[in-house]
Amino acid sequence: MIKRLTIFGVGLIGGSLAMALRAAGTCHEVVGCSRSEEHLRQALERGVIDRYTLDPAEAVQGADMVVLAVPLGAMRAVCAAIRGHLAPEAALTDVGSAKGSVVEAVREGFGEMPLNFVPGHPIAGTEKSGVSAAFPGLFHGRRVILTPLETSDLGALARVRTMWEETGAVVETLSVAHHDEVLAATSHLPHLLAFGLVDSLARMGERDEIFRYAAGGFRDFTRIASSDPVMWRDICLANREAILQVMAGYQQDLGLITRAIEAQDGDALLEIFQRAKAARDEFCQ
Amino acid sequence: MIKRLTIFGVGLIGGSLAMALRAAGTCHEVVGCSRSEEHLRQALERGVIDRYTLDPAEAVQGADMVVLAVPLGAMRAVCAAIRGHLAPEAALTDVGSAKGSVVEAVREGFGEMPLNFVPGHPIAGTEKSGVSAAFPGLFHGRRVILTPLETSDLGALARVRTMWEETGAVVETLSVAHHDEVLAATSHLPHLLAFGLVDSLARMGERDEIFRYAAGGFRDFTRIASSDPVMWRDICLANREAILQVMAGYQQDLGLITRAIEAQDGDALLEIFQRAKAARDEFCQ
Repeated sequence: MIKRLTIFGVGLIGGSLAMALRAAGTCHEVVGCSRSEEHLRQALERGVIDRYTLDPAEAVQGADMVVLAVPLGAMRAVCAAIRGHLAPEAALTDVGSAKGSVVEAVREGFGEMPLNFVPGHPIAGTEKSGVSAAFPGLFHGRRVILTPLETSDLGALARVRTMWEETGAVVETLSVAHHDEVLAATSHLPHLLAFGLVDSLARMGERDEIFRYAAGGFRDFTRIASSDPVMWRDICLANREAILQVMAGYQQDLGLITRAIEAQDGDALLEIFQRAKAARDEFCQ
Repeated sequence: MIKRLTIFGVGLIGGSLAMALRAAGTCHEVVGCSRSEEHLRQALERGVIDRYTLDPAEAVQGADMVVLAVPLGAMRAVCAAIRGHLAPEAALTDVGSAKGSVVEAVREGFGEMPLNFVPGHPIAGTEKSGVSAAFPGLFHGRRVILTPLETSDLGALARVRTMWEETGAVVETLSVAHHDEVLAATSHLPHLLAFGLVDSLARMGERDEIFRYAAGGFRDFTRIASSDPVMWRDICLANREAILQVMAGYQQDLGLITRAIEAQDGDALLEIFQRAKAARDEFCQ
């Protein structure tokens, strides 16, 4: 049971977490904090939080669980603002999509690594953002990856794990570096490809016509290009090296396809397409 | 009213067309023809066709509407096989995803351009294939692009248009070249990117883990990589030039994103992502 949960950034993820824990009846009070009073008021009106404050230091007072659900670029400032105000028994976690940069930001913000900090990342979300898109079932059946540090307190780890399990999520642990490599491949790269494709088409002369004839597959394929641009800028900067590495591999692979088309090498194309279809059919049933 | 509809290739598209016209009550008899008797028997059992034959010449006898729904690579052979057997009043159309190559194949197969030939392309489909995936509502509300030739008989054009309208589709006309450019951008390129991504990830050492942590967006993004590999090999070969052109533009754009990440240029990334999100939100509501 969480007595007082403080959420920084009550958007899609932070808001859905609060709603899920309320629905599970495992959280007594939820305090929201953000730079935008409008967002907080919206969260209050939707019943997602019990109260809010714009002051980070005040927000964490008496909290036994603190969740950083702000954009990656804002993590460090929030940590600096709550430094010295966090109760020693409070568990601290985050929901950032790139863990290496969050670990660094937390260390810098606090001036040292808080022992109760357990980095986390729920593999859930939609292309929508904001508390208006939040819903209590968002994490149900989804994976949440925790990347505990060597310094992480085991009690704090257990409490963060329990919190996520109470949302219906399946909790696993990975190292920070491994998480960032895997997510670069499965999430960050696809988002860049989708943003790149839509932008590429949007800048063509006949863009209205181009989009007009887009088929059903195009809509699914580009859904993730409707994601929050600020969040994705932050992710690109935060997970730069892992993203550049998978992007380089992908561009090489795209080069193979391009050269096969140039050479009219149907066998090479068929081999690539068959391998891809088999892998997708196997893993995304 | 179509008296006898002959469909070559009774798969997802050909089968759904037959089902839609039956449901609309605007087709008296459907004859199926294919190289695979098993597929034809399946279509007969599902009630999609009234009868079938493996002999193309026999299949078109007495038909007033003939639809080529075979893979692009098989168009020419079918045309050569029905040459001299098509009734002079029969309208001939196809459903190929690349029109230039079909026009060429039809001309070569017949030894001249049949006046009653009206190239067509329904912008509809799923990642599934085969008659077992066919359903009568597939074209409802979807666009069908006809690319009539200068030589195309206007009566045949009107009959092909009416046939598609009876499936609930919205029929439009484009030139052959323009169709192929637009589809290269909105359909062919996205499929190649999805095939390329899944293949790229599948060839990574830790592929099981990679796919395990794939989020919801990944599933949507890669759905089209479950499409029929043979069909997509044919499309790549058939619309080679237009695909290479949009691929080159895309790879340049991907290079811009990559360089912005390398240079940690958040403003450039934000600009690209915002432009893409705005375009997608505008066109795919």
